[in-house]
Amino acid sequence: MSEQPTAAMIVIGDEILSGRTQEKNAHHLAQVMEQIGVRLSEIRVISDDHGAIVATVNALRAEVDYVFTSGGIGPTHDDITAEAVAAAFGASIDIRDDARALLAAYYPEGELNDARLRMARIPEGAELINNPVSRAPGFKIGNVHVMAGVPSIFNAMLDGLKDSLAGGPQTLTRVLRAQAPESKLAPGIAAIDTARPEVSIGVYPYFLSGIGPGATVVLRSTNSAELDAALAEAREVARALGVEPIEESPT
Amino acid sequence: MSEQPTAAMIVIGDEILSGRTQEKNAHHLAQVMEQIGVRLSEIRVISDDHGAIVATVNALRAEVDYVFTSGGIGPTHDDITAEAVAAAFGASIDIRDDARALLAAYYPEGELNDARLRMARIPEGAELINNPVSRAPGFKIGNVHVMAGVPSIFNAMLDGLKDSLAGGPQTLTRVLRAQAPESKLAPGIAAIDTARPEVSIGVYPYFLSGIGPGATVVLRSTNSAELDAALAEAREVARALGVEPIEESPT
Repeated sequence: MSEQPTAAMIVIGDEILSGRTQEKNAHHLAQVMEQIGVRLSEIRVISDDHGAIVATVNALRAEVDYVFTSGGIGPTHDDITAEAVAAAFGASIDIRDDARALLAAYYPEGELNDARLRMARIPEGAELINNPVSRAPGFKIGNVHVMAGVPSIFNAMLDGLKDSLAGGPQTLTRVLRAQAPESKLAPGIAAIDTARPEVSIGVYPYFLSGIGPGATVVLRSTNSAELDAALAEAREVARALGVEPIEESPT
Repeated sequence: MSEQPTAAMIVIGDEILSGRTQEKNAHHLAQVMEQIGVRLSEIRVISDDHGAIVATVNALRAEVDYVFTSGGIGPTHDDITAEAVAAAFGASIDIRDDARALLAAYYPEGELNDARLRMARIPEGAELINNPVSRAPGFKIGNVHVMAGVPSIFNAMLDGLKDSLAGGPQTLTRVLRAQAPESKLAPGIAAIDTARPEVSIGVYPYFLSGIGPGATVVLRSTNSAELDAALAEAREVARALGVEPIEESPT
């Protein structure tokens, strides 16, 4: 699946690392990347810390085709993502007229205070990312997409920009569930994985109370012929153990 | 809060990055670290890839006091975490008698097949981590704790080892909810944040349908006197806007 573009996500937020808030955006991003044929290779959750943001943005933007950040672009003192991303690119940052105009049109007369104006600070050379929920824009600089942490806004921003991302061939997924211990499926599945390098296979155990251990076999490839062949072979691995596997919907 | 030891988590699993599975262990680990006075500084989700695991383990074990991994220690071909962590330390790895004995006592006679024996592969010099659920142990090598990805097993392993981790002073948390836009609270809260460097303050917006925008102010410190003072000041910031803030339970 090496012909797919790659992506990485940076979640910026002390509230996630302290266990106060459950992170919600990464799973959604992962599903959207899967839909458009982009391989998400890494997710990092980091602190609201200037140095950590600069270092992480610079490490990941050199490694993957698309970087997405979530969090830290609101109006308060702990919203430092825009400055830090600008610093990572060596770009200047200031209130930009186009971003200010979006906020001015949204807030009632006299309500565009200094804190809100922080949300119009955009690095030099960046393109705005539309926020249909509350107008304060995200931005794209280089291959880095800077988006809100609030899930409804993150999702709306991603929805608006995803058609602009070049994807590769879509990853196709097939799922077999077999009521057999994963350790007994293991040798046969490993042989398929080795013989078919274009297919990536994961095996995940489960336990049904009163019935016993089973395993979900997830087969993934951009090559449908290879995938079908691997699926047929995986069925035979289960049948050789006296188990009729059930094909499940991949989602 | 610099006197607290630090931790990082490495989640190993293609099923998370493809969006198939929602990650569940990081949030739990974050909450446990918070309880024992350890500061979780980073979470990384990476692929089932030998090179990625080696590089990430080596980067993070040099940066923090405790590293925790989840995933990739089962019996199938895609379970490559133990080998990769051994490689990160330059340690040899083989089936170890103490780990084999745990599995032999658990599985019925004749059921300890080659795949299951993979779960007894332990790097040279590592200590076993107890798995009260299904016996296949995790292990600790250096400051890296290698644990299962299945949440019930991850949680049980962490529960068993957490008392052995040296924590620092506990972080205390106070939470104020104010029915005012975060942008109006921002200047006053920023002033508290600047004046009280021992207190870390996050401001998180919410929107109540029919009522309007509000913000949750989360104040955190290991110094209870500073925290109480900051809390009192934050109340006054809200009151100056004509809003009586409500103190909430921190969890």
